[in-house]
Amino acid sequence: MTLERILNAESVAIVGASKVDTKRGFQAIRSLLDEKYEGRIFPVNPKEKRILGLECYSKISDIKENVDLVLITTPAGTIPNVLAECGKKGVAGAVIIAGGFRETGDTGKKTEEDLIAAANQYNVRIIGPNTSGMMNLKTNLNLVGLKDAPKGTIALISQSGNMALSLFTEAKLKSRGGFSYYVGVGNELDIKFHEYLEFFRDDPDTKVILMYVEGMREGRRFLQEAYKTTLRKPIVLLKSGRSSTGQMSAGSHTGALAGISEVANTAFKRAGIIVVEKSDNLYSVAETLASQPVIKNNKVAVLADGGGHATIAADILTDLGLSIPELTTRTREKLIKLLPFTAAVRNPVDVAGGTDSDPTVFAECARIILKDPNIGGLLMVGLFGGYGIRFAESLAWKEEDAAHQLGKLIGKHNKPIVVHSLYSSVKPHALELLRYYGIPVVDSLDIACNCMGALDQRGHYLNEYHAKVNFIFNWRSKSKPEGRRIIENVKKENRRFLLETEAKRLFQIHGAPVTEDKLAVTADEAVRMAEGMGGKVALKIVSKDILHKSDVGGVRLNVGTKDEIKKAFKQIVKNVKAHHPDADIKGVLVSPMAKPGVEVIIGTKLDDQFGPVIMFGLGGIMVEVLKDVSFRVLPISPRSARHMMEDIRSAPLLDGVRGKAPHDKAAVRKLLLICSEIVEAYPEIAEMDLNPVIVYEKGISVVDARVILKKPSE
Amino acid sequence: MTLERILNAESVAIVGASKVDTKRGFQAIRSLLDEKYEGRIFPVNPKEKRILGLECYSKISDIKENVDLVLITTPAGTIPNVLAECGKKGVAGAVIIAGGFRETGDTGKKTEEDLIAAANQYNVRIIGPNTSGMMNLKTNLNLVGLKDAPKGTIALISQSGNMALSLFTEAKLKSRGGFSYYVGVGNELDIKFHEYLEFFRDDPDTKVILMYVEGMREGRRFLQEAYKTTLRKPIVLLKSGRSSTGQMSAGSHTGALAGISEVANTAFKRAGIIVVEKSDNLYSVAETLASQPVIKNNKVAVLADGGGHATIAADILTDLGLSIPELTTRTREKLIKLLPFTAAVRNPVDVAGGTDSDPTVFAECARIILKDPNIGGLLMVGLFGGYGIRFAESLAWKEEDAAHQLGKLIGKHNKPIVVHSLYSSVKPHALELLRYYGIPVVDSLDIACNCMGALDQRGHYLNEYHAKVNFIFNWRSKSKPEGRRIIENVKKENRRFLLETEAKRLFQIHGAPVTEDKLAVTADEAVRMAEGMGGKVALKIVSKDILHKSDVGGVRLNVGTKDEIKKAFKQIVKNVKAHHPDADIKGVLVSPMAKPGVEVIIGTKLDDQFGPVIMFGLGGIMVEVLKDVSFRVLPISPRSARHMMEDIRSAPLLDGVRGKAPHDKAAVRKLLLICSEIVEAYPEIAEMDLNPVIVYEKGISVVDARVILKKPSE
Repeated sequence: MTLERILNAESVAIVGASKVDTKRGFQAIRSLLDEKYEGRIFPVNPKEKRILGLECYSKISDIKENVDLVLITTPAGTIPNVLAECGKKGVAGAVIIAGGFRETGDTGKKTEEDLIAAANQYNVRIIGPNTSGMMNLKTNLNLVGLKDAPKGTIALISQSGNMALSLFTEAKLKSRGGFSYYVGVGNELDIKFHEYLEFFRDDPDTKVILMYVEGMREGRRFLQEAYKTTLRKPIVLLKSGRSSTGQMSAGSHTGALAGISEVANTAFKRAGIIVVEKSDNLYSVAETLASQPVIKNNKVAVLADGGGHATIAADILTDLGLSIPELTTRTREKLIKLLPFTAAVRNPVDVAGGTDSDPTVFAECARIILKDPNIGGLLMVGLFGGYGIRFAESLAWKEEDAAHQLGKLIGKHNKPIVVHSLYSSVKPHALELLRYYGIPVVDSLDIACNCMGALDQRGHYLNEYHAKVNFIFNWRSKSKPEGRRIIENVKKENRRFLLETEAKRLFQIHGAPVTEDKLAVTADEAVRMAEGMGGKVALKIVSKDILHKSDVGGVRLNVGTKDEIKKAFKQIVKNVKAHHPDADIKGVLVSPMAKPGVEVIIGTKLDDQFGPVIMFGLGGIMVEVLKDVSFRVLPISPRSARHMMEDIRSAPLLDGVRGKAPHDKAAVRKLLLICSEIVEAYPEIAEMDLNPVIVYEKGISVVDARVILKKPSE
Repeated sequence: MTLERILNAESVAIVGASKVDTKRGFQAIRSLLDEKYEGRIFPVNPKEKRILGLECYSKISDIKENVDLVLITTPAGTIPNVLAECGKKGVAGAVIIAGGFRETGDTGKKTEEDLIAAANQYNVRIIGPNTSGMMNLKTNLNLVGLKDAPKGTIALISQSGNMALSLFTEAKLKSRGGFSYYVGVGNELDIKFHEYLEFFRDDPDTKVILMYVEGMREGRRFLQEAYKTTLRKPIVLLKSGRSSTGQMSAGSHTGALAGISEVANTAFKRAGIIVVEKSDNLYSVAETLASQPVIKNNKVAVLADGGGHATIAADILTDLGLSIPELTTRTREKLIKLLPFTAAVRNPVDVAGGTDSDPTVFAECARIILKDPNIGGLLMVGLFGGYGIRFAESLAWKEEDAAHQLGKLIGKHNKPIVVHSLYSSVKPHALELLRYYGIPVVDSLDIACNCMGALDQRGHYLNEYHAKVNFIFNWRSKSKPEGRRIIENVKKENRRFLLETEAKRLFQIHGAPVTEDKLAVTADEAVRMAEGMGGKVALKIVSKDILHKSDVGGVRLNVGTKDEIKKAFKQIVKNVKAHHPDADIKGVLVSPMAKPGVEVIIGTKLDDQFGPVIMFGLGGIMVEVLKDVSFRVLPISPRSARHMMEDIRSAPLLDGVRGKAPHDKAAVRKLLLICSEIVEAYPEIAEMDLNPVIVYEKGISVVDARVILKKPSE
């Protein structure tokens, strides 16, 4: 695997090496030396003989030894030539610092294209460009120039250098943990997010992968690799750029494509990723997942030394979907014995001063609570760590004793403890001890709760059934010969969309119940067909030139008598001719009017970053006015189909409200799966639109169907 | 005003004074001495002669000098007697530390009642009980025992001692600001939230009032005083206890009543309060409002030294409703001259390395940006303060220069600056300088954005028109003689609800359009009346014994022919008799069937904490299935009526969707105001229910109305 030689490089050349201490080419070398990089360092600069005591080479080819990785600090324009040299020398990869590519406009885009061409031609993989660099903290391969980067088990993939710096700074100031690797993805020009994932998935020293993403080039590949990764280790991710200004900022920053954030978030979650909304939660959540067992049963206890924190924590944990069950009678009895009579022992537990003179009571409480079979994890909130500071210095010893006890409880019960402490940033020894045992200590109550939420989410994900859907299409595998013929015929006729008759037939042969339509070529024929159907009918134009039938007066509903049908037939043809004198009219579709039921809308389209996605919503005002829809990246499993139906706010309407019987949700679910199957079966399809589908107590009916193919170039 | 003598007490007695250093009665005295309280201190304990060098008194009456305030550290049971002594001595108030009252159950409640009785009898006002104490930081009257409490201009009112401690700790560690007063409200037994507000409103040294609330006893009085206060200074508030576990926790903590959080939040906002959702935002938001000018035009700029922070900030600010407009061409040209070509200058502005060798460029950028007439405030995000740490020590001097320049810009433009810095907690001198100038520096990007959001909200509130509604009812002022007679008659007959005929008449005389109903006593009479109406009719039972008419088969809709009407009349009477053989039937109401339109529902009820509130929603599934309703505390202004109509998600349905004409929103608004007026006019009313009201393109019709009176005891 190529990335092995790059991310674990045993030798690195610095192109643009310098003696000037404000230059990146100087700082990089000094940093490698200061941090004691375990590999070989080769400065490259034709004007220098030695830099910082190291021999300096005129060009890469002058280096006799093997070179795994090159750091290029020279400007954008020089890079294609440098890459050519690298290729000839057999270098595996290059880290390109320079910006000034696509994110700056057309000229930059041209430079970028030259760069890609050179990289491909000479087979050199690229990190960046427009990156702050990369680090392997195990070998001290530090190409970022950050001093004393904290080491640990988190691999960081970031599309922003200053977000990486934020996280490194936070790790150093607020924890004892840190990072195994850092990669600045930059413009993601060559090596993509999913390739880094693959590498870190197999890295034995990485326990959690932490990601900051502004936009992705290959969203689907990312989902596929993420799905495989999260079965083995957690991925924690923040995606920014959801507002239009944020997207613009991301664009000017990395030239990122703006994603449909709604699709991305559900897709990420389906791939088992822990999506974090607030940037200041990122590090603590990753640290917690790296060091603590997960919450297996969704149930937690809160242990507090004051009511306010307990109340706030209960609110936040509840919002996060965690349950805070009452403790068992046995547990409560033990706590009552231990604590003053004013203490609350139901859960949250409030010691109510019971720890004031002896903080080891905290450990005693924790021991009792974690023994409770209902409780899957413990959040301690309040002043722990500050008793020695606030009350009496001697209490600090007791706090340290408590910390040792708490640390050992984790291993005993395999249940997590997270600690919120006001004194976190003061770093009293008791809190450092907790951290030594891997117990996260944070000063924000919100973040502490979110850490519990992440442990719960991860526990839930590992427990649940993992659908076979792994975001991979078996293109064409489920196609039917007749379906193939329909599509091929449309392509042969250079059409972009299927006629309604063709579209409905396609759905029919894949098992979807469509209205029983007939194509009439004359008004009399239409009358005869309608008579055979009994009841009122709908008439709709069928023409390869008319996609939006209603817009040109090509649809008439609820037509009943012979005369009405004749008149409607003629009017439709006349209307269409008025708009499109040359329209190739195949006939008029006669359909029985559907009985009333609940209308739903299903659509599929191609998302810029994730490819085929599917949409579901209730017809009429729910979609049009309330925008109440749900999206999923295709393909979907029966489980995803059910979830996407439950996701909309108006979902209860299908359950039968106001005394009505429930509607046939199973049939809708099946139709969603048929849509998924059709998209998979015919890769030519760009968009589908089933609007409306009518849902009955028993069964459904696809009343209108539209299928649009990709442009030949797509 | 009593609170003056309490909160600015010039002398304080400590009942339960002790020589034992772990006792509250010792710590309180030591703390008053250590902090150099400016007033007199009188320890009270019959067993001691001197404590910490101070003369100790056997009982309060032994003290010769005037005593303003007493701190009582003795257990709950002793307190009524102590209060009696205080009263005789002329003490103004007592701070009661002991818990063990209502929050612990029935016995505690009894103790509490004794305490109230004593306080009332002897005219001693009480802070608490179950409080951590109070502080006046101007006179160093520190009854909490907290060392080195940071002084400043924020008055803190908190229902949790450890939340107060959190805020004090945060102020000390992360800012140069602090507090003017702290009051631990405890169980809010005597002195209520609104009384503290009144005091702090007039305190010249308090610029912002910060509140942590779990539950309130007199919500309406609080709103009234808050409304007056926020016209003069900001109130920042966090309300917890919204989840059921949170409510339980609050209950076990302060015995607080759980509030309807939805009503509370809109009411607080209408009163001009800045409601904060996350506890770790509280202090920074208060500090920002205390020291920075508001954002007047909703428009802000972001200045960053890296793309990631800029993108994240843009997302959060957009979510908060702030606008991040493009800078003017002139501004951009000036920035382009100053910054490297890779910089982004539209807004967010990313200096892209342009400050690396000279951080004073930040000040230059800020000067240019704040001069832009579109920009109302500046958020700086990233590494400022860390250039000297991260790159070269010499840059620290330039950062300090920049800080001086930034500080002076505030006064010049009267626009706020908020700074996010990774190095905030390292406290480099440049950041301390910013704080000296009153510029808040925070290490969380989210919190920094929320500070901008608060400045925007405050600016908006000060700019907007302030409705006359100040949460005060002019009871009975708008009653009509006939309306009075209806209510009096119902009361005289010992009924709890108005007949439909009475309720509709009440609405009619207040100007609401109701259906033109007639009361029929015989089936034939009903037929005649229906003929007069033309078209189909509804028949509804009218009986003082039947509130829920449909439930007993007392309603028939869409009745047309003579025979149908006769049959329906008899059936209704029969149905009702079957359920209530003794029902006193006044007749059957004959109403013309309302034409179809959009159905809305309006209701009023009494909220535990805020008294009369009003609800609005769209009829049918919108209320029943989607729970899409909005609430307001009554009375409401035309503006509030409009806002509550806009607040529901289904609001666009009244605007006329799918080509339909808009509906008569003005008439609905008027009806909401009539409901407000009726509740104000007749204080006997407990609940009203207008369901449905049908809204047409022009006009509305109240189809059914229910009015329930308070129980005589309420």
